[in-house]
Amino acid sequence: MPQTANAPITISAFSWAPEFARGNVRDLPVRWMLEEIGRDYEVELLDAKTPRGPEYVGWHPFDQVPAYRDDEVEIFEAAAILLHLAEKSGQFLPVDAAGRAKAISWLFAAVNAVEPPLRNVTTFPLFYSDSDWAAPASEALAPFAEKRLTRVADALGANQWIAEEFSIADIMLTFILRTIGGKLIEAFPALVAYVERGKARPAYQRALAGQLADFADENAPA
Amino acid sequence: MPQTANAPITISAFSWAPEFARGNVRDLPVRWMLEEIGRDYEVELLDAKTPRGPEYVGWHPFDQVPAYRDDEVEIFEAAAILLHLAEKSGQFLPVDAAGRAKAISWLFAAVNAVEPPLRNVTTFPLFYSDSDWAAPASEALAPFAEKRLTRVADALGANQWIAEEFSIADIMLTFILRTIGGKLIEAFPALVAYVERGKARPAYQRALAGQLADFADENAPA
Repeated sequence: MPQTANAPITISAFSWAPEFARGNVRDLPVRWMLEEIGRDYEVELLDAKTPRGPEYVGWHPFDQVPAYRDDEVEIFEAAAILLHLAEKSGQFLPVDAAGRAKAISWLFAAVNAVEPPLRNVTTFPLFYSDSDWAAPASEALAPFAEKRLTRVADALGANQWIAEEFSIADIMLTFILRTIGGKLIEAFPALVAYVERGKARPAYQRALAGQLADFADENAPA
Repeated sequence: MPQTANAPITISAFSWAPEFARGNVRDLPVRWMLEEIGRDYEVELLDAKTPRGPEYVGWHPFDQVPAYRDDEVEIFEAAAILLHLAEKSGQFLPVDAAGRAKAISWLFAAVNAVEPPLRNVTTFPLFYSDSDWAAPASEALAPFAEKRLTRVADALGANQWIAEEFSIADIMLTFILRTIGGKLIEAFPALVAYVERGKARPAYQRALAGQLADFADENAPA
């Protein structure tokens, strides 16, 4: 990572995650953006063995990752951090009002219109595998998720990125499609190619390596 | 609404909705913000009888409401519209960097951390009432939604609003708690009082009246 003279940035991340979650934790899009803009950052690793106390909850009210801190602000929610970094750096958010509005619309859409329906379909069978309801719920909710993916694919069309040039909307949307989309996105070749374009960026690969490097088996909870 | 010399603002809304949805459609938070800042706006009413064509999908890729247009930008996603209106008006978003970051964190949290878990619990039994899975899914997912509400209540503490002064984060969060929280929020007196504070604002009441006035039974689909 290039050195900068700017004030330090700290994000929170986990020191351990189960195998299926590695590479999929939500500090990834923030690391990705930090790598895109070439900013050094420190990672405050959370101990999976010890419940976090009020100090961390004061930083991240939902006791999750990532939380973000620089010399001016504290932020939680990955998408909010991306927006701050784009504004702070002047990068990866179109400067014209119309393009900026489109990118911010898609940043919100990624986490509100796209993510929740995908999450239900792909995570219910994973997290509630011993229930009677998870499989039929996932099956019943799949058409709605697929409809949303059809809309995303239609909006992308033949474009490389969702809002003209590569932006924070692509970082968030790529992360969600790749991490939460599961097998659902396989029916959408344009979205598979879109995700691959994002993953091919060197900054993404550095971010992924960074997250994986911070996990250590000796930090696993008992 | 006060008259202004500014360029026209148009939002989309439905010309009809079923009884249970009236007052709960997502143009409400946008109308609320427009009333708070005293901006005139026009409503482009969508015909519930006719499928919307590519022109509307070009404005709102998920074919929902609200979409927003002014002389410079087109936006979809209610929270993205709130952010734009706050930036455009210089109102209802703290001006100091730390306060602004906190409000924007909560704006994203409202639609990503709070809304989806509540939505599953409260809407599965409503929209999938003829299924075997909706009731047990709702019951199994309720503790997670309640945990999220506990976090919101803890973060609110004894404060009036979620990020110091009244902001767009409160508009979005109040709308979600009130509309999607259902009976879940009744266990949290601080959140009930928070929602009541929002609903007591004259701008909220004008927004609600505006949405309700735009529904007409003769516009019902066959």
